[in-house]
Parts: sequence; structure tokens; C-alpha cells
Amino acid sequence: MVISLYIPASKQGLHNITNRVESQVQKAGFDSGLCTLFIKHTSASLIIQENADPSAKCDLEAWLSRLVPENDSLYTHTHEGPDDMPSHIKSILTSTSLSVPVQHGKLALGIWQGIYLWEHRHSGGEREIAIHISN
Amino acid sequence: MVISLYIPASKQGLHNITNRVESQVQKAGFDSGLCTLFIKHTSASLIIQENADPSAKCDLEAWLSRLVPENDSLYTHTHEGPDDMPSHIKSILTSTSLSVPVQHGKLALGIWQGIYLWEHRHSGGEREIAIHISN
Amino acid sequence: MVISLYIPASKQGLHNITNRVESQVQKAGFDSGLCTLFIKHTSASLIIQENADPSAKCDLEAWLSRLVPENDSLYTHTHEGPDDMPSHIKSILTSTSLSVPVQHGKLALGIWQGIYLWEHRHSGGEREIAIHISN
Repeated sequence: MVISLYIPASKQGLHNITNRVESQVQKAGFDSGLCTLFIKHTSASLIIQENADPSAKCDLEAWLSRLVPENDSLYTHTHEGPDDMPSHIKSILTSTSLSVPVQHGKLALGIWQGIYLWEHRHSGGEREIAIHISN
Repeated sequence: MVISLYIPASKQGLHNITNRVESQVQKAGFDSGLCTLFIKHTSASLIIQENADPSAKCDLEAWLSRLVPENDSLYTHTHEGPDDMPSHIKSILTSTSLSVPVQHGKLALGIWQGIYLWEHRHSGGEREIAIHISN
Repeated sequence: MVISLYIPASKQGLHNITNRVESQVQKAGFDSGLCTLFIKHTSASLIIQENADPSAKCDLEAWLSRLVPENDSLYTHTHEGPDDMPSHIKSILTSTSLSVPVQHGKLALGIWQGIYLWEHRHSGGEREIAIHISN
């Protein structure tokens, strides 16, 4: 089965979507299986990261924005603004698709792991994630 | 089912393979499912990126080649030439495997998304992608 | 089916786990299918890389540690030591999940490909990888 998860427009940065994915997994009702997430955009992406200390999230955002800054003279693809090309680059350095096994009816995440949508635009609008769940 | 897709030798850079993958998905005939691509090489990789404006593609190529230049004095693995080690590094920063849900018998790609083979060598030869499609 | 693979505490760097994964695939007994690996940690990750020349492995480790050094003044998340934040960053630049098709009862890896656990901590402890195998 494939369902769509719609994430409301969010500010630039990491947004924890674990609970929303987990609730789809529980609806699907498989005791054991695989949950695959796919984000249908090229300027936002997915990662699994630490869900405990917010400073890890802040440092990830700051580090990636320093590696891929706005207003780099290399960019020619700039018609949607200074965050256009950095968003595409950040997206390919992280993940468009992620797969998480399902065990005992739940996502088999490590104790400190959360699933994050990484919004790379300043005003990215609503985002759609297609979720495939199978046994 | 697993099928092999052979991509003829291509010059260094991004090559859109969406149509070739889509045609395998249509042959498989699942209304709903998951299509997973796996590239059987360590000096070429896979990404999902913008399929509209060619300037995005050029900037991605230029940015990654600046981050991972040839002739870096750090490299010791150089016996296949100056593009040998940069190819391996570019490969681990992007994706060896990608999964795309199938909906209504087609890849559930976003409207601006294409699937790309990223050839990191100057003369990489034919590339093989194993494709798994299931419901 | 989902099984857990436990990798004993390893020093920082790349560790070839191909044989351990392959043996699970052979136990599963599918002629054709998909094997998905998921590492249940945010300071270690997975990659597919060259399994032949050890110099490629050394250069990958050296390159990534130069890109993401310890003791960067940007980091605020440092309470577990100087390798804490670099581990999270290295993890998001590589892969938390990887999928490899199964053909003829074996992982459909390219001839030079191996599956690696990348330990990013100096003392990371035992690591758990959840493996989903289906046809």
C-alpha cells in the first residue's frame, strides 16, 4: 500500500515527523515489514537523526548551511532566489528516500532516532511524502 | 522481480534515466508498489533531482566537483587516474540505492523530479542498475 | 522477515560486513528479492564501496574526517566529546538505510562492491543493524 502524508509549510530546518509516520505504520497493521518514505520534492529531504538533544539539530542545520551557503558565485540557477540552488544541493547530500523496517507492529527505530523532514527553502510550502508499507 | 538496466557509457555528469525506469515499472504491471534501484558500481551513483531547468543540473555538477576536486594531495588511491578517488567520494555523498513508490501503475515522482545516473568517471564504461519491483 | 545483526564494538572507520549480510540472505532462502539494511544509530552509518584496494577505504575515511573535523567552533552539541557532532554529520552525509536486490539467492552486488558499517565514534560500542528481506 502507498499513502500520502502531507506536511504543512514549515520554516527552513529539521522537523520531526516520526509520530505521523508511526501512526500510518500502525494503521497498516503489519507485525513485521518495511516502511519506505519518499519525498516528492527536490528542495526538501529526509534524514534519520538524534531526537533527544535539540543542540544536535541546530548544529546539523548550521553545519550544512555553512557547507552550502546562499549567494555562492558558482550558482547560475538562481531565479527562485538565493535559497534555490542550496536547497537542491542539500537535498542530494541527504536523502530523498529512506526505508525503516517494521518489527512488532512498529518502526524499528533506535532509541535515540527520529525521522525528520528537512525543509531547505525559506518558504517551501506544503510537502508531500509518499509512504509504502509492505510485509 | 529483479531486472537489470544497462546504461551505455556516458560522459561525466548527470544523465536522466526516468523514462527507462518508468518503462520497466509499466512492464511489471503493479498498480501499487515499490521500485528500488541499485547501481552496481562504486564510481557512479543515483539521485533524484529537478528535471526542468538544465542550469540546476550544471550547478550540481560544478558544486560537487569543487567540493571533491581531482589531484587533492590527500589521495593515495590514484592508480586509475585523477578521477578515481573523487568518484568514490562523490558516490558515497549521493546514493547507491533509491526507492520510489509506485502509484496507479507509475512511479510516484513529484512533478519536477527525475531519476538521474551520476557518472563520476571521465570514461566509466557501461553501467548496470539492478531494479527490484514489488507490490 | 526482519532480523537483527549485531556488530561488535569497532574502532572508528569502515568495516566490511558483506559476509554477515550475505549469510542472512542465504538463510532467508529467496531466489529473488530485496534486502534492506537499517542501522539503529545516529553516529554510525552504512555505505557500499570498493572492496578491493584498502587505499580507497583509507582515503574515504581521511577525506570525510577533513570535511567534518573535530573541535569545529560551530559545534554546540559537544557533551559526549569532540567526536559527538562530527559523528552525526558524517551519518547524514552517508546512509542510514541501504537496499540491495537479491538475485539467484545472493546479494546482487557489483564485483567490486562491499557493504560497510562506518563507525564514526572512537568508542561507539556494539551496533545493531535491522535487516528486512522479502521477495
